[in-house]
Amino acid sequence: MSNRYVVVLAAGQGTRMKSKLYKVLHPVCGKPMVQHVIENVQGIQAEQVITVVGFGAEKVQEVLSESSQFVIQKEQLGTAHAVMQAKELLKDRDGTTLVICGDTPLIKRETLEAMVSQHEKEESHATVLTAKAEEPTGYGRIIRNDKGQLERIVEQKDATEEEKQVKEINAGTYCFDNRSLFSALDKVTNDNAQGEYYLPDVLEIMKKEGKIVSAFMTDDFSETLGVNDRVALSKAEKIMRKRINETHMKNGVTIIDPDQTYIDCGVEIGPDTIIYPGTVIKGSTVIQSDCVIGPNTEIVDSFIGEKTTVRQSVVTESKVGRNVQVGPYAHIRPKSDIDDEVRIGNFVEIKKTTFGKGSKASHLSYIGDAEVGKNVNIGCGTITVNYDGTNKYKTVIEDEAFIGCNSNLIAPVTVGKDSYIAAGSTITNDVPKQALSIARARQVNKENYSQKFKKKK
Amino acid sequence: MSNRYVVVLAAGQGTRMKSKLYKVLHPVCGKPMVQHVIENVQGIQAEQVITVVGFGAEKVQEVLSESSQFVIQKEQLGTAHAVMQAKELLKDRDGTTLVICGDTPLIKRETLEAMVSQHEKEESHATVLTAKAEEPTGYGRIIRNDKGQLERIVEQKDATEEEKQVKEINAGTYCFDNRSLFSALDKVTNDNAQGEYYLPDVLEIMKKEGKIVSAFMTDDFSETLGVNDRVALSKAEKIMRKRINETHMKNGVTIIDPDQTYIDCGVEIGPDTIIYPGTVIKGSTVIQSDCVIGPNTEIVDSFIGEKTTVRQSVVTESKVGRNVQVGPYAHIRPKSDIDDEVRIGNFVEIKKTTFGKGSKASHLSYIGDAEVGKNVNIGCGTITVNYDGTNKYKTVIEDEAFIGCNSNLIAPVTVGKDSYIAAGSTITNDVPKQALSIARARQVNKENYSQKFKKKK
Amino acid sequence: MSNRYVVVLAAGQGTRMKSKLYKVLHPVCGKPMVQHVIENVQGIQAEQVITVVGFGAEKVQEVLSESSQFVIQKEQLGTAHAVMQAKELLKDRDGTTLVICGDTPLIKRETLEAMVSQHEKEESHATVLTAKAEEPTGYGRIIRNDKGQLERIVEQKDATEEEKQVKEINAGTYCFDNRSLFSALDKVTNDNAQGEYYLPDVLEIMKKEGKIVSAFMTDDFSETLGVNDRVALSKAEKIMRKRINETHMKNGVTIIDPDQTYIDCGVEIGPDTIIYPGTVIKGSTVIQSDCVIGPNTEIVDSFIGEKTTVRQSVVTESKVGRNVQVGPYAHIRPKSDIDDEVRIGNFVEIKKTTFGKGSKASHLSYIGDAEVGKNVNIGCGTITVNYDGTNKYKTVIEDEAFIGCNSNLIAPVTVGKDSYIAAGSTITNDVPKQALSIARARQVNKENYSQKFKKKK
Repeated sequence: MSNRYVVVLAAGQGTRMKSKLYKVLHPVCGKPMVQHVIENVQGIQAEQVITVVGFGAEKVQEVLSESSQFVIQKEQLGTAHAVMQAKELLKDRDGTTLVICGDTPLIKRETLEAMVSQHEKEESHATVLTAKAEEPTGYGRIIRNDKGQLERIVEQKDATEEEKQVKEINAGTYCFDNRSLFSALDKVTNDNAQGEYYLPDVLEIMKKEGKIVSAFMTDDFSETLGVNDRVALSKAEKIMRKRINETHMKNGVTIIDPDQTYIDCGVEIGPDTIIYPGTVIKGSTVIQSDCVIGPNTEIVDSFIGEKTTVRQSVVTESKVGRNVQVGPYAHIRPKSDIDDEVRIGNFVEIKKTTFGKGSKASHLSYIGDAEVGKNVNIGCGTITVNYDGTNKYKTVIEDEAFIGCNSNLIAPVTVGKDSYIAAGSTITNDVPKQALSIARARQVNKENYSQKFKKKK
Repeated sequence: MSNRYVVVLAAGQGTRMKSKLYKVLHPVCGKPMVQHVIENVQGIQAEQVITVVGFGAEKVQEVLSESSQFVIQKEQLGTAHAVMQAKELLKDRDGTTLVICGDTPLIKRETLEAMVSQHEKEESHATVLTAKAEEPTGYGRIIRNDKGQLERIVEQKDATEEEKQVKEINAGTYCFDNRSLFSALDKVTNDNAQGEYYLPDVLEIMKKEGKIVSAFMTDDFSETLGVNDRVALSKAEKIMRKRINETHMKNGVTIIDPDQTYIDCGVEIGPDTIIYPGTVIKGSTVIQSDCVIGPNTEIVDSFIGEKTTVRQSVVTESKVGRNVQVGPYAHIRPKSDIDDEVRIGNFVEIKKTTFGKGSKASHLSYIGDAEVGKNVNIGCGTITVNYDGTNKYKTVIEDEAFIGCNSNLIAPVTVGKDSYIAAGSTITNDVPKQALSIARARQVNKENYSQKFKKKK
Repeated sequence: MSNRYVVVLAAGQGTRMKSKLYKVLHPVCGKPMVQHVIENVQGIQAEQVITVVGFGAEKVQEVLSESSQFVIQKEQLGTAHAVMQAKELLKDRDGTTLVICGDTPLIKRETLEAMVSQHEKEESHATVLTAKAEEPTGYGRIIRNDKGQLERIVEQKDATEEEKQVKEINAGTYCFDNRSLFSALDKVTNDNAQGEYYLPDVLEIMKKEGKIVSAFMTDDFSETLGVNDRVALSKAEKIMRKRINETHMKNGVTIIDPDQTYIDCGVEIGPDTIIYPGTVIKGSTVIQSDCVIGPNTEIVDSFIGEKTTVRQSVVTESKVGRNVQVGPYAHIRPKSDIDDEVRIGNFVEIKKTTFGKGSKASHLSYIGDAEVGKNVNIGCGTITVNYDGTNKYKTVIEDEAFIGCNSNLIAPVTVGKDSYIAAGSTITNDVPKQALSIARARQVNKENYSQKFKKKK
């Protein structure tokens, strides 16, 4: 294995995206597309990864700061010109240089590895990635000679009728002998309609010099998709989604409808977990085995323990234990830690709260900034009054406490172990352990009211 | 450009729809299919649009009353018979008549324009719209002569094996020289198995008379879909949905999954807005730029200002300002006007309410028939008690007020500027500005209750 | 019609499912896949259905206990070996034996009927089910002679280049003359690379003996799908979902997006009901005509009366009457019985409750273990306090009662007919009919509080 280098072309404006966001930063399955590219090239263990960015693309540099060097292409004068920006950094090196576009997030790590390996084994000066397209119109066609060797690449507009029938197309990803690359780049001109310096011209120059120029064909055309507008972005997302979901299914996860299940790249899911449609799982979420997730559930950056059900709910940046029932229509907000065997029922919001083993908040409650012990029963309509308009305060509910329905717990307040709060009470002071606390008015029944009331009206 | 007329065939019973609703009134992406047809024909700037409706189809006439005249086809005796119903209105006119079915909502405006233009340029007496079908079985085939001219149309049942291989099919849409049309119609007979008068027979009659009969082929077969049952209806919906979503994506909207995003025809969306799956956007909704909408959100006839997030929520007939956070699980009902920088959180219902800039209702509240000022904080569990069983009353909450959790505001009532309501209070009288209002019982703690309670049981 | 028998092969381990659940028990559209097979074979009216199960597969026997006999295949020595396990039960019978795999849930009842009929009519000794595959790679190919008769079946690995071009494949389902089957089975050897006894060898043996071996081709390749991993499971689910939804659409149900509507096999839906996307309908649910269901709704084992709307809600094991409005964001839990013309609004939970005609719970309420009469108005935030930490108690609300907002009804309690509860009351005692019941503290306004409060902070 020779020394290897990567040049990522990420300076394109992406005007067809019609976006304030730099094209290569648009996410695919939760990760900027150029970051997919940077991660996929890691398979070839390059010494140096250099990203060519446009003027003012600080945000791109920020996103990739730990995994790439940068060179700036001030003017967009073509792909050959873009690679030339890396000349100072690379020109004196021996080895193989992979050139890849920052808008091709679907080219697989294994494809790049195989391509570079073939390139080095065949001692090619250049190898171009190709694929067979059902509908090749618009792509550069790969013209091979009788022996099957790459003869040249013909652009759509220059192709004869016969050449237009060719289905093998140029995917726009290349590897080169590094020294040959920069030597050839010096000879590329912008003598064409667009006035641009085109990278494929390098291949022709090398061919003329008698150098070996090869092709490496991937059998999965979908890898080659370049994202130029949001229609293509949605297609890239769909293809990557399919890959992610198939991986999970092969690992033993049941996904009822993989077309309608949206799982980010980094998510882990255990076997025999069932995911119902309309579910979005994002970020660094881990879901253990034997869970039931969805339908129509969103889980972000959270941990879900085994045998837990989360249905028609939203969970964000929280930990949920084993055998927990969440939903439908529950909302667990960041920094919550829900222990095992808990029940968080409908129309319940939990925020920044620890919730002890076996405790329940089954309906219509808001528990925020709280520490809830074990086996606590939080009645329907309970509210932790954690905010006075200026500061937030903490509510502590100790083990085995029973909070009656429609109670207000005005924080800071502690409800003692094994205590009991009567329904409809507003609790402003601490409740001792084992006490009953009550704060409500006596009921008065006024007879024959409805007749009077109706008369009045 | 000659004078132009349109005849829309909309008298078919649609029995395979198995519906009480007239076939052509079934909506596709939020609009009755015949209305799509009527709008698409507007591109040719016809002098007269005549819709042929069945006996008793008052509802069709109602829907189209502003854009069409009507003639009644009392009995369903075939497509030629249907066009004949327009004879009295059209027979003495010079010009071009487009005949189109009311159940073909996907034929594009541009296709109709191009077809009519070709027809007039070529001085044809009839032009039939055709398309290439992957699976032509069942369609009438377009048989062309050596010069590529239309020779005749063969129905499936009459086609030879060779003719059955032809993929070009009759889309069932025609334009005619108007006088030639009605002259030929007089000669059409019902001498066939069904005993019906068929419109394609007109072409044969014209051919025999030596008149020019042409074909105009669209390259998008999906345009020709006729909706005869609900399976076809769902296909039409899918194709139109794809068109709508691609238009938005090309305009700079990110749609994570266009297969699962349901946007009606008239909706407007600004660039850099992101739409998550499971989202339904209906009617005349306008969403500005940089918003995040969904997942699993429904927005109907509403305005959403820029940089606003609406997630897992329902918004109907309301205006929502900029930088607003809605949801998850919020419900904004009709006639609400939410100002900028507001937060409407989980399990909050807003109805017929103005909600001032910077105000918040973060959890579990119902605010109905209210005027809420600026920077108001509405605590969790707040309820505007707007209904006494007979009438609805108004609640006014002035700027900077702080409504404690679980408060009832019994309307009509005014909570003054900068005032403060204690948690758990039921407010029956106006609260002066800057006042604290409180209405709750004192808390009493009864020690050692849990032991007694357990003993009792 | 001769006597008929069925052998279902269900002993495969299904290791590629990576599941604790036995492969054939994984559900497809709500029903274990082997149960689909058992139901589909019922069309041929077999005398005996024998399922071959693996050692320890008690759960499979449990699921099929009413519709099948069982034989155990202790070791997995191949498909011929599996069928041999039924020898004792079948060997002395005359008639036709259908052999089908338990992991092919998509083979239609009509296909099996037609196959067995052809088999018997042609007096074949064996008939193999075949289909045309677009991508036949991996399947056994059907080689026919010049007269179109089955010549033999070639496995992928043994196929010549020419044979590999054959698109007709062996679907792995067979019917046999029963006596010929067991006679041939005795001659099958395990003299092959895997050391297994293969069922297709029976065909070759029969051919050699001069017996008639035929093929029956279904024109729907999707029927032949065998489920070996969860990717295939999701495909089976998608195909069956499509079939189910098309049936409903042809019956007059509008399904806006059949790709995203999840209806179990046994569900009934009336015409002119509209189903919005993201909806899951399970079990034995019946939905009458003219309803609007969804989007994003889940209905399980429930009855929904005509003209009812259920949107963005969950309904489980309950009955909902006619002209009822449910949702958005309502949750109707088991054993609820909702009468006609009711409204259950947002953030309302109903559990084990009868809810009388014309009554309303429009917002943020929990009504559990209750009997609610007619024309009752349940104000926002009402809670039936049905649980004291040990037992559950009943709440009775009689006709025409008006429950003020944020009321607690502490069960057991009866609220009398035509009575009125003031907002914010906690009701511990019965309320007589026509009475007004009130239990709340008087409001006190403390002036100029906000200034003092701000000073303090």
